[in-house]
Amino acid sequence: MTCKVLVAGAGAIGGFYGALLAKAGCEVSVLCRSGFDTVKRHGFHIDSHDLGQWQFKPAQVLQHAGDYQGDPDYILVCTKVIPSLDRAALIQPAVKAKTAIVLIQNGIAIESEMQSAFPWHEIISGLAFICSNQTAPGVIRHLAYGRLILGNWPVSVSDKTLQLSQRFNQAGIECLTTENIVAGRWQKCVWNAPFNPLSVLSGGLPTLAILQTQEALVRGVMQEVFDTAKALGYPLPDDIIDNNIERTYNMPPYKTSMLLDFEHGRPMETEAILGNTVRAAEQHGIACPRLQSLYALMQLRELQVNYLP
Amino acid sequence: MTCKVLVAGAGAIGGFYGALLAKAGCEVSVLCRSGFDTVKRHGFHIDSHDLGQWQFKPAQVLQHAGDYQGDPDYILVCTKVIPSLDRAALIQPAVKAKTAIVLIQNGIAIESEMQSAFPWHEIISGLAFICSNQTAPGVIRHLAYGRLILGNWPVSVSDKTLQLSQRFNQAGIECLTTENIVAGRWQKCVWNAPFNPLSVLSGGLPTLAILQTQEALVRGVMQEVFDTAKALGYPLPDDIIDNNIERTYNMPPYKTSMLLDFEHGRPMETEAILGNTVRAAEQHGIACPRLQSLYALMQLRELQVNYLP
Repeated sequence: MTCKVLVAGAGAIGGFYGALLAKAGCEVSVLCRSGFDTVKRHGFHIDSHDLGQWQFKPAQVLQHAGDYQGDPDYILVCTKVIPSLDRAALIQPAVKAKTAIVLIQNGIAIESEMQSAFPWHEIISGLAFICSNQTAPGVIRHLAYGRLILGNWPVSVSDKTLQLSQRFNQAGIECLTTENIVAGRWQKCVWNAPFNPLSVLSGGLPTLAILQTQEALVRGVMQEVFDTAKALGYPLPDDIIDNNIERTYNMPPYKTSMLLDFEHGRPMETEAILGNTVRAAEQHGIACPRLQSLYALMQLRELQVNYLP
Repeated sequence: MTCKVLVAGAGAIGGFYGALLAKAGCEVSVLCRSGFDTVKRHGFHIDSHDLGQWQFKPAQVLQHAGDYQGDPDYILVCTKVIPSLDRAALIQPAVKAKTAIVLIQNGIAIESEMQSAFPWHEIISGLAFICSNQTAPGVIRHLAYGRLILGNWPVSVSDKTLQLSQRFNQAGIECLTTENIVAGRWQKCVWNAPFNPLSVLSGGLPTLAILQTQEALVRGVMQEVFDTAKALGYPLPDDIIDNNIERTYNMPPYKTSMLLDFEHGRPMETEAILGNTVRAAEQHGIACPRLQSLYALMQLRELQVNYLP
């Protein structure tokens, strides 16, 4: 039986992973708002640094989830996690009894809202380690990396998760599964929590310049994430901070996703990445003055964008 | 005998206070780099909200302190305190045996460098509470306030300090003296340490918007300044934080001096206001993660200004 997939938020992430699943034989449809006309007519053009170029023609191209024909096995939610977007409402009309909801999104504690909206559905939480851009409507450049980690929320790995992981691997991208995806989110947060806001608040510095001049602050923020994760029952490896520092020194200077959003005037994932982290720390009585300062400053920065001409 | 004054750094602050001393009968000369030609030809035009308008013709207008003719009783140093400016070298050729050096400048711990350079001279430390702008070369608008506090560094009030204070009062501006000017600097720092960097890092928000949305961070930074001052032997009044918060709510929305410098591409007093505060805290083992974060971010912001096109 054909595996049916609906991708909600078919941008640089959703378009790319949707195209991979189509390659692996799934019937993939997309829900996209921006670029709808172009995608409807021409589908996607994928240009990947290591998987080559190909066209991806979605089975259905939709502006509203309610227009979806059929019962999807998976809905991949690949939008940004921002307060102005109600992800549950976005996909709700297309969610059927057997649909698993797959979140390929950034941030901490982004699953419970979806589990509340769909209490009887499988929630698969996913982390993407990828550099990709949408350079024009329907045109996606895959620049580097691409690895996925999937796990059921809050714990375990279901058959459906394993099957999805196999499809991704079949299409040529590494996809691992984990029994503890929440710990995985905290691991990723160790890097995201300092570098995303610092890149914006510094006025646009790439990661290497930040690290070379303010390593102590970066380490301080990482330590607060580490302490918070531990207090929540997700102890991270002892060397995770050193490893993240070393890895970042060895990366080419890199613009974070938050900086790219800021530079393009798009909403930033401040709440998903920083706000939820700060709230988790505060609820567990973990001191996080650096995270609180960065969070407050990001809120001021966002206020300023709307405040001044 | 005429009281002779040389003002080094005759901008919005130095030009204004120099003009007041001239009004009070002193022989006032100025050392100014920018605007030299205009000031040499026309002197200063002062336009004060409560003291009226007048012309101030300096006795000598100099580009180099070595050109000064005579023995000044006071040298008023009114430049910004920035690492690229050697204040001692700037005034050194004009400093004579009886000259008192008066610092009307922002920041913490800005006196010891001058005392080291001139170990046998009186160092008078001063705080100005004033809004004034130089709107064109030689044109100074005094917008609000103007109060001065003077005291010998590190403690006491000398006859020379009292006499200078009397001149200012004579000219119509309130000038107090204090036995403990260092405590006065820490008091002023309670306000400066949060609002100056936050106004820059927020992207240009006025004080009221910052306070209305991020009062907790502002209070957190103030508390760290309070704790540091206490550890250094300068206990501040218990209600100083509440008073500063309340006063700022009642001020008209205000652009800090650091924000004005940033907007005009001028060097900022990051080291004098934040760096020296952080170093004082660190030397005394006082936790100051918020101050450290703001200081690191300001350094990143300054790096960015020189880094990107």
